[in-house]
Amino acid sequence: MTDLTPTMFDDAVARVRAEVASLHAELVRYGLVVWTGGNVSGRVPGADLFVIKPSGVSYDELAPENMIVCDLDGNVVPGTPGSDRSPSSDTAAHAYVYRNMPEVGGVVHTHSTYAVAWAARGEEIPCVITAMADEFGGPIPVGPFAIIGDDSIGRGIVETLSGHRSRAVLMRNHGPFTIGSSAKDAVKAAVMVEDVARTVHLARQAGELIPIPQVAIDKLYDRYQNVYGQTTDDRR
Amino acid sequence: MTDLTPTMFDDAVARVRAEVASLHAELVRYGLVVWTGGNVSGRVPGADLFVIKPSGVSYDELAPENMIVCDLDGNVVPGTPGSDRSPSSDTAAHAYVYRNMPEVGGVVHTHSTYAVAWAARGEEIPCVITAMADEFGGPIPVGPFAIIGDDSIGRGIVETLSGHRSRAVLMRNHGPFTIGSSAKDAVKAAVMVEDVARTVHLARQAGELIPIPQVAIDKLYDRYQNVYGQTTDDRR
Amino acid sequence: MTDLTPTMFDDAVARVRAEVASLHAELVRYGLVVWTGGNVSGRVPGADLFVIKPSGVSYDELAPENMIVCDLDGNVVPGTPGSDRSPSSDTAAHAYVYRNMPEVGGVVHTHSTYAVAWAARGEEIPCVITAMADEFGGPIPVGPFAIIGDDSIGRGIVETLSGHRSRAVLMRNHGPFTIGSSAKDAVKAAVMVEDVARTVHLARQAGELIPIPQVAIDKLYDRYQNVYGQTTDDRR
Amino acid sequence: MTDLTPTMFDDAVARVRAEVASLHAELVRYGLVVWTGGNVSGRVPGADLFVIKPSGVSYDELAPENMIVCDLDGNVVPGTPGSDRSPSSDTAAHAYVYRNMPEVGGVVHTHSTYAVAWAARGEEIPCVITAMADEFGGPIPVGPFAIIGDDSIGRGIVETLSGHRSRAVLMRNHGPFTIGSSAKDAVKAAVMVEDVARTVHLARQAGELIPIPQVAIDKLYDRYQNVYGQTTDDRR
Repeated sequence: MTDLTPTMFDDAVARVRAEVASLHAELVRYGLVVWTGGNVSGRVPGADLFVIKPSGVSYDELAPENMIVCDLDGNVVPGTPGSDRSPSSDTAAHAYVYRNMPEVGGVVHTHSTYAVAWAARGEEIPCVITAMADEFGGPIPVGPFAIIGDDSIGRGIVETLSGHRSRAVLMRNHGPFTIGSSAKDAVKAAVMVEDVARTVHLARQAGELIPIPQVAIDKLYDRYQNVYGQTTDDRR
Repeated sequence: MTDLTPTMFDDAVARVRAEVASLHAELVRYGLVVWTGGNVSGRVPGADLFVIKPSGVSYDELAPENMIVCDLDGNVVPGTPGSDRSPSSDTAAHAYVYRNMPEVGGVVHTHSTYAVAWAARGEEIPCVITAMADEFGGPIPVGPFAIIGDDSIGRGIVETLSGHRSRAVLMRNHGPFTIGSSAKDAVKAAVMVEDVARTVHLARQAGELIPIPQVAIDKLYDRYQNVYGQTTDDRR
Repeated sequence: MTDLTPTMFDDAVARVRAEVASLHAELVRYGLVVWTGGNVSGRVPGADLFVIKPSGVSYDELAPENMIVCDLDGNVVPGTPGSDRSPSSDTAAHAYVYRNMPEVGGVVHTHSTYAVAWAARGEEIPCVITAMADEFGGPIPVGPFAIIGDDSIGRGIVETLSGHRSRAVLMRNHGPFTIGSSAKDAVKAAVMVEDVARTVHLARQAGELIPIPQVAIDKLYDRYQNVYGQTTDDRR
Repeated sequence: MTDLTPTMFDDAVARVRAEVASLHAELVRYGLVVWTGGNVSGRVPGADLFVIKPSGVSYDELAPENMIVCDLDGNVVPGTPGSDRSPSSDTAAHAYVYRNMPEVGGVVHTHSTYAVAWAARGEEIPCVITAMADEFGGPIPVGPFAIIGDDSIGRGIVETLSGHRSRAVLMRNHGPFTIGSSAKDAVKAAVMVEDVARTVHLARQAGELIPIPQVAIDKLYDRYQNVYGQTTDDRR
């Protein structure tokens, strides 16, 4: 499952455990989750593994040692810390994404309010604000209705996002899934998709939206992906 | 009132006092209550008693020792800590539920904003998001208009929720009451009912909702009640 | 200005200073104010004086010693701590209320969002939820349009609230003023008026509201004013 | 670039660094920003320089020493602390304002939700509440659609706000920029523009707004700019 030396492997897993555990706090900080809902995962670089949150555990109790290591089929890796617990009930969807999108380093799922509201109407979010052009390069698409239990959620995410600029998909009647180059990047996308879902909802409530010309969207997206921030890492 | 030994009884009461006192903090954390409104109660396992919050006391001052022990007719048990104070003005409604629904271990009442908004229109919340199918197995029903002073609120809760999948009822022009297998489970239902009330309100504001097929609702509900979480306790 | 002995007078002023300073934190906690907006005052029992917040000072810097003592004409009492600063720009309105409503022990003014929204339409809030019947005994009335600079705001408050059950008035295009038996009671009314303004706004947004029969409103109001809480003080 | 002695200059820069760094916390406190969005800058008094936030850095990590000193063309001043990092991607717009509006001491940009919602419709906010008359002296105007990369955003801000009472402009499809006599004053304007954007949005959602007569707006604005607060500094 890995080409790393044992020490490098242990270090890589420990880093991802710590990162994934602490990123859950961002979901709470931005009000994207209630109770035990929502989950963040991160790929272990150099290994066919990812780290994800346990199922039904309170956000106050999340710590690096109770994060769970899974292989790309979504099976818990026996003998690793946390392997006595069940992983997030969305683990199969995360695994499907990692298996089929090798460029993805992190996946996030929430039931954040405004994003779910668009999903309950099966309506994509139009790109009418520059921050959305920067971050997503166009509209946020809607994925199919799919329920937990097989690969249909994962497949819906991958089919909708493959070749799309957006790192966020609104799964119909369900909620947003976001992907990123890292777990942190996927969390940023989860924060931003709720922010644009709320802003565009409110804007449209009060009258006609003014579209942004496609050429301006393209320019903004290109610049933000290549110039913003301090380093490549900050760009997202 | 109990088959427990005196020590077991004291321990059981102390545990419920601590649980009920601390669960009130979740109502504050999720913004479900203002000032002294809202109340949580929990049944004492093995005894015909429940523990409830005192009336009109600030959330900052709630502690295990000022929780109040009542019998199933809603009378304060004399000589117990806190018995010099008045219990929540909704005590009669809680008592009615415990008397008539032996499977209920906890009851919560709030005036949370969006749930009350549906209640002021006497309108049930349709089940259009998967999180709601998971948690409530269908729509959130409306109970009758009833005012404090006799058993009519309690009766309205019991008649509406008996045989219903939902653990939450919107009492008309009043607000949500939730029940659960434990006080924590009822608090979770109070958090989730406000979350779905808000999300479905916002979704419908902007256009047509897409229904979820009943067969999918049934599957989601069944799975969530039986598979989610680490143990039976976490499933709710 | 007072029948108190000097020591009793000093103690009374110190108590009101401390109470008024700390109550401002409740305005922040419930999100009723931004920046330096909003103000709380409290009458000094047994004296023709009240204590109010300084003008344009940050909520983080409010302390008992920088509260300002005024007479019932709204003049700062020279030589008292804080008398080198200007009192709240709404001091004249508070003074008018204390002068003309001897039963009032506290006054609060905010620009809380939903209450101001009703005020910008000059529309009273209908009584369609039981918590509102409990607390205000009917609708929240609208007062006249009046601007700062003379007694017209104070007069508008007094004329609207005299003989009205409601302790809150929405001054047109301006915002809520609330009165109470004490400063704390007036703050509670400020918290509750925003809560009902928000809830009824949202309820009506989605459809027809169901009215509460007047006889039920009367019963709820009577009970809440006379039975709720631990003592007369808690009843409000 | 300055007439100050070296010590005076160092002190002035240090003061502005500290002020600008700490004012970013107000953007977080009032919920005006998410992730790394938003920026505050302040002019260095007596020098042709301003201090601005680095690009794409988390709000938790902002400190006086990583603020960046720029000249009025928006170039980072080499050799100053923080000069190894990139300044905010909105630096050119800030610089344009400082260059062309010598009376401006601070500039703020956010993507605050309700202000952006008005901007997405290209609609100015009408002055229907007294707090808005106080603070902005009339409606909040809309500026042109302009994208990052040249002087067009800065020019749009300056052309819209020159000779206008409002210190806030809603740049179309983008968001609010605010100016002030100091960085703190511009932050206050950013807080207040979101507050009025939200309140007027909600008010209008539910029915007809009542206009405020122009003569009353003029009186309120004049009084607030000249009488409110403890000193000239507090008046804004």
